[in-house]
Amino acid sequence: TDTVQTLFFPDREVACKDYFTQRHGCTNQRCKFAHDAHNSYGQLLRFLSCTCISLEVCVYTITCADLANILIGLHNKGVVVKIITDGEKENALGSQINRFREEGIQVRVDKSSYFMHHKFVIIDDKMLLNGSFNWTRQAVTGNHENLMVTTCPELLFEYRNEFDKLWKLYEPK
Amino acid sequence: TDTVQTLFFPDREVACKDYFTQRHGCTNQRCKFAHDAHNSYGQLLRFLSCTCISLEVCVYTITCADLANILIGLHNKGVVVKIITDGEKENALGSQINRFREEGIQVRVDKSSYFMHHKFVIIDDKMLLNGSFNWTRQAVTGNHENLMVTTCPELLFEYRNEFDKLWKLYEPK
Ligand SMILES: [Zn+2]
Ligand SMILES: [Zn+2]
Repeated sequence: TDTVQTLFFPDREVACKDYFTQRHGCTNQRCKFAHDAHNSYGQLLRFLSCTCISLEVCVYTITCADLANILIGLHNKGVVVKIITDGEKENALGSQINRFREEGIQVRVDKSSYFMHHKFVIIDDKMLLNGSFNWTRQAVTGNHENLMVTTCPELLFEYRNEFDKLWKLYEPK
Repeated sequence: TDTVQTLFFPDREVACKDYFTQRHGCTNQRCKFAHDAHNSYGQLLRFLSCTCISLEVCVYTITCADLANILIGLHNKGVVVKIITDGEKENALGSQINRFREEGIQVRVDKSSYFMHHKFVIIDDKMLLNGSFNWTRQAVTGNHENLMVTTCPELLFEYRNEFDKLWKLYEPK
């Protein structure tokens, strides 16, 4: 059966980044941040950090530096990271797009007047995260948001198709 | 097994409203609008129109008059319609919230400075639509958007919980 999990935001407590992303977890005995499995942002950090091979990101707004750092870390250890985002948000305050480009991560951008409004991620071609969640600090700490997590092959097939279609569509001429 | 369907936007062609929402379909022999099952907006119109008992709408922006008309039609034939939306969008150009209130539909609004950013709908407590899709004309006709459609009981349970939680949270004092 397909793993299905749902992440709802905002969290009541702030996730401990070390706990959810470091191989050895959190070593701070007095850590005040959340270590529990019900922390949605923590789960998101964990899913992204565990990427081994490939990460396709198709997200309207990407301004959260923490999440960008994870992508850059993955890229630097050889994971193939591809990012599709919207042009109107490319130069928004805090946009991480230029950082990605400087690091050599492939980014393609919707330059049309319509929105590339998706918010989905495909991890290692076997896990899909999809919902209302943009990669902003506000989405983590305040907004009501959701992400569905699934390994359903039919869904992965559909969203991979959509990713590949947009990747071609936004190819620089 | 749980029906899973995915709707991707924009459509290539404009959906025929009669075909997808009227009991007798489209009677215009020269109709120029789309009648095919792959039309995402058509499918959305059909799912909503087929609601029998209850419709819970939890959507950040609602400005599309067509979709609002369907909700009002359902309300007028006895379907229990409940709407949660965001306060910042309540008075946006084309907002349908005041129309809903005038028709006697129950609406609750997030007045906080954060976003109630969900975009999900629960139909007859047995079908969930969730994704990036706000109820705007732009989302139908131009944006790249997605909706997942599922009858998975575990997912319905989680999103029903979220709906009920927010419904209480936004109860007028
Ligand atoms: Zn910690
Ligand atoms: Zn027609």
